[in-house]
Amino acid sequence: MYIGLDVGGTNLRAGLVDEAGRLLAVRKIPLGEFQGVEPFAKTLASLAAQAARDGGISPGNLAYVGVGIPGATTKEEILYTCNIPMKNVPLARLLQSYLDVPVLLENDANCAAVGEYFCGVGQGTKNFALVTLGTGIGGGFILNEKLYSAGGMAGEVGHMVVEKGGAPCTCGRRGCWETYASATGLIRMTREAMERDKSSRLWEESDGGTAVTGRTVFAAALRGDKTAKALCETYVSYLAAGVVNLLNIFQPEVLAIGGGIGEAEEELLFAPLREIANRESYATRCGGKVSVVRAKLGGDAGMIGAALLERVI
Amino acid sequence: MYIGLDVGGTNLRAGLVDEAGRLLAVRKIPLGEFQGVEPFAKTLASLAAQAARDGGISPGNLAYVGVGIPGATTKEEILYTCNIPMKNVPLARLLQSYLDVPVLLENDANCAAVGEYFCGVGQGTKNFALVTLGTGIGGGFILNEKLYSAGGMAGEVGHMVVEKGGAPCTCGRRGCWETYASATGLIRMTREAMERDKSSRLWEESDGGTAVTGRTVFAAALRGDKTAKALCETYVSYLAAGVVNLLNIFQPEVLAIGGGIGEAEEELLFAPLREIANRESYATRCGGKVSVVRAKLGGDAGMIGAALLERVI
Repeated sequence: MYIGLDVGGTNLRAGLVDEAGRLLAVRKIPLGEFQGVEPFAKTLASLAAQAARDGGISPGNLAYVGVGIPGATTKEEILYTCNIPMKNVPLARLLQSYLDVPVLLENDANCAAVGEYFCGVGQGTKNFALVTLGTGIGGGFILNEKLYSAGGMAGEVGHMVVEKGGAPCTCGRRGCWETYASATGLIRMTREAMERDKSSRLWEESDGGTAVTGRTVFAAALRGDKTAKALCETYVSYLAAGVVNLLNIFQPEVLAIGGGIGEAEEELLFAPLREIANRESYATRCGGKVSVVRAKLGGDAGMIGAALLERVI
Repeated sequence: MYIGLDVGGTNLRAGLVDEAGRLLAVRKIPLGEFQGVEPFAKTLASLAAQAARDGGISPGNLAYVGVGIPGATTKEEILYTCNIPMKNVPLARLLQSYLDVPVLLENDANCAAVGEYFCGVGQGTKNFALVTLGTGIGGGFILNEKLYSAGGMAGEVGHMVVEKGGAPCTCGRRGCWETYASATGLIRMTREAMERDKSSRLWEESDGGTAVTGRTVFAAALRGDKTAKALCETYVSYLAAGVVNLLNIFQPEVLAIGGGIGEAEEELLFAPLREIANRESYATRCGGKVSVVRAKLGGDAGMIGAALLERVI
């Protein structure tokens, strides 16, 4: 039995996972204000121990604890995190002082890819990619049946320029995929479309513009709003630009789309995305096949993947 | 001892390579007109046997023969080739009928990456990328010390869109990296610059426009031509867009640039390219390092890599 810990932007979660990848017990608490590295480690260790006991396991009998971190890590150390002020933190050692079992750290997008690989839409493949469309874009790659991690910083697919000289990105480049195809990018483009069309249903769907989310454009498009439909097409064209780039570079058997935007309607997102992928990808032009699918495990992918990390490293 | 065969656009070459990766003997003949699969296999087998005998080895005593193919392959079969009319050709079996030793096929850009990995600038790394700037752009990746091949079609980095809606590409997409950063792309941009500036030294360097090559712009820039210097900067900015994308996705310890354009002057190509890579790559912004270097083995990389294929598969 394993524990997968998920260090999210809102919650900390611990899941007890069995050999078959089943989630037997989950504990979560709000992330709260960061009080320092030691209290953080103690909280995580306590959460892991509770989830284990919920499933009837003594924490000391766990095979190991895997931890998904929103940032770059080695197996033992957090190099840096995006939202929590931690740099060069030996978190594995800190957790072990409480738990006395092996601890493995990994980037959270990589953990989610591992989860989908073993228990979701990546099952049975040798080469699998997961793209997570959230605040940013996360990428995780299983290549030749192993997680491609490369020192904890690989897979920054969101910072792939698809429109040279385009919209400025937080990373300092311009035209990164993430500035268009993340939820943040979609919200920005939705606001821009609303400014251009004051009569669009986008206004009604977002409480007069006070509550624009990644769902707003899909909701308005479903009700037939022309501006929203046009924006859906534009959005999918940007999403497809990066997806086809990744298909051409990695040629995975399956590329899955997860995250909040990955829950959008089949006919508005996946059908047109597949149409472009089939038309434009190098493999299909040469008689091969591509498979672009919706991820399956939702918010549990990272926790399950963290628990199963050892199988792919 | 191994034979590496290189199926190039102009020549067929066979190299005898020892355990240390040293090239002991080379035979080459022009590719000539394609006479069919059987004569093609016979020619390759004969070339391999000659190179072996030149080095004092009986062909039957070779450990194996590796073959670099300009196209997609499995280990045994050519799926398709770009310039030679072959599709679903069991070339390994055909060669074995003449040579009676194991035969391995692989994409030529992948072979070149293997060559640089063992005998060139990739030595000592776990994760290494080679980008070849020629007629198109080739990409080869050693990840976790293994060649990433994925069914023979991976690594099509040239068909990564970096300027959505940009210049049309032979693959059907628009704005592919290859349409700007390949030698073909640079020649097109050189001609465009010449049309805009009839007084540019680019005309003199290309015999009045009759002999524009990938070298023309560098030659004119070295002599101080302003239009040529500006085009060098534009070219490097496109080259860097794709290079930084690959650094962000793969985070290789070393990314090497080879092919004809990779022989350009340090101050015109590599210095400004490194400056952008250091400024823009995600790793350097997070305290990491990137290494972008000139490939070392030139035209021999593919032959040497083909000979050493078995070590990375």
